[in-house]
Amino acid sequence: MKLLYPTSLHIDTKSLEGFSVELHPYDVTVPIPESLIDAEFLVTWCNKATNLSDAASRMKNLRWIQSLAAGPNDVLSAGFDASRIAITTGSGLHDETVAEHTLGLLLNAARRFYEMRDYQTRGEWPGHLGGPQPDRAPGTFRTLKGANVTIWGFGNIAKALAPVLTALGANVTGVARSTGVRHGFEVVSEDRLQEILPKTDALVMILPGSASTNGALSAERLALLPSHAWVVNVGRGTSVDEDALFVALEKGSIGGAALDVFSTEPLPKESKLYAAPNLILSPHAAGGRPRGPEMQCFTV
Amino acid sequence: MKLLYPTSLHIDTKSLEGFSVELHPYDVTVPIPESLIDAEFLVTWCNKATNLSDAASRMKNLRWIQSLAAGPNDVLSAGFDASRIAITTGSGLHDETVAEHTLGLLLNAARRFYEMRDYQTRGEWPGHLGGPQPDRAPGTFRTLKGANVTIWGFGNIAKALAPVLTALGANVTGVARSTGVRHGFEVVSEDRLQEILPKTDALVMILPGSASTNGALSAERLALLPSHAWVVNVGRGTSVDEDALFVALEKGSIGGAALDVFSTEPLPKESKLYAAPNLILSPHAAGGRPRGPEMQCFTV
Repeated sequence: MKLLYPTSLHIDTKSLEGFSVELHPYDVTVPIPESLIDAEFLVTWCNKATNLSDAASRMKNLRWIQSLAAGPNDVLSAGFDASRIAITTGSGLHDETVAEHTLGLLLNAARRFYEMRDYQTRGEWPGHLGGPQPDRAPGTFRTLKGANVTIWGFGNIAKALAPVLTALGANVTGVARSTGVRHGFEVVSEDRLQEILPKTDALVMILPGSASTNGALSAERLALLPSHAWVVNVGRGTSVDEDALFVALEKGSIGGAALDVFSTEPLPKESKLYAAPNLILSPHAAGGRPRGPEMQCFTV
Repeated sequence: MKLLYPTSLHIDTKSLEGFSVELHPYDVTVPIPESLIDAEFLVTWCNKATNLSDAASRMKNLRWIQSLAAGPNDVLSAGFDASRIAITTGSGLHDETVAEHTLGLLLNAARRFYEMRDYQTRGEWPGHLGGPQPDRAPGTFRTLKGANVTIWGFGNIAKALAPVLTALGANVTGVARSTGVRHGFEVVSEDRLQEILPKTDALVMILPGSASTNGALSAERLALLPSHAWVVNVGRGTSVDEDALFVALEKGSIGGAALDVFSTEPLPKESKLYAAPNLILSPHAAGGRPRGPEMQCFTV
């Protein structure tokens, strides 16, 4: 049995030796060579659409495709026969990296590194952000200690993120469709957002992209947040009403927004979001680095 | 017995009621009023120099001064009779806040939020920092996972910081005068820096200001760091040779520096550091927020 692994990232194939599959590297930018076309297993990462559509028509023995992406949209739309081929995602490979980036965005917001940068760029000392400061003054988000962090979309990324937030003193509440205590954290349903958002200091959105999450953070829900609250979105850009968010930032009716995702990426040059007050822009950089892909291959 | 507490910050005095001391608030910007001048205990925070020198000459019954600052230099230089009056610091009140800020600076460096901000300011999408990325490529500092973080100055702040770094996957080594295993982390002596710095991805400096730490991070020691390594200084500015650091940043012989402290603060307008490449400037903002000052008063 042949397993084809992509050369588009580093995979520690040594750790996979000794199993009953032959490991073959392949180039994701060109068609699979004839000598490998009978492979049963295909691991994908950043494959060209032409590579995938060619594979879909030529790889007759394929039984399993392991995408290393969190969402294998490229594979699903390439024309593979899903009735015959198991297609699995690499969503678990991005939990740690996205959680770390999210933590960084939260601290960037609380500690106002973005504002310090603006002063530095102008050659000015941001004295108002240093020296003696009140600690945890009411109506502020300047530390994770004691902050109410609401994580909307409480899956595996939240599972990696929440304990670190707790270690730093935050009170974490999850919001998701299936409720109860998950990974030791209270998770409530979306119909309780009305009660939770007004008490939220930082709202972390990790919703997948789908018709049901479209515009989930609407103008109405934004209006429920306190004026010091931050929105951090590392899920999908479509889950936030960007026009309503821009208005909220302009009015100062929320504290700020740190966005790693946008409804259109790259964010178009003419977007007003670039210059919105208290907006931290991150270019879909939270994930995109499969961590430990060997573990996925290992399950084959 | 009277205890005077400052109104220069919020203190939860309710939690102190029921003890055998009378609690009296006082204004740190003016002389202590005559009615309180016989107090035995004085808590200080951001007192005016004139308030302190006046108190030193008029408070004849004073037995204990509890500063809430990490270093009570203001109290020590005000003329109090230290042979008669116990002077204690509030160093422990700043561990969590400094640790959180340090973590934020490390993530700002690793996730390159400062560089993203520069692009955003110009209305440009920093595409090279997003999308598919290698994870933990050799010779990079793009994540705390697997990163070798060296903490030079391993006291209570390090005790608060190191476990969070470990939780995020970093390998933490401490450097200090007293060596051994402290708080569960290996702490080695400064004479091993020669061996440790070349393997360091991020060097966190938490050294106090003193003659012996002056210029501790010298040109010679900077030269031992790998070209991707970051320096994060939250101790005292004098512990870094700033001219040598500037040269290292200009040459790219280190990855960058995130500085919360400088030899002169505010950093003078003409300083070259404002525009040094890969320098993150923070205006002595890590601490300065005594957390839980009630606990210190409680010990009286």
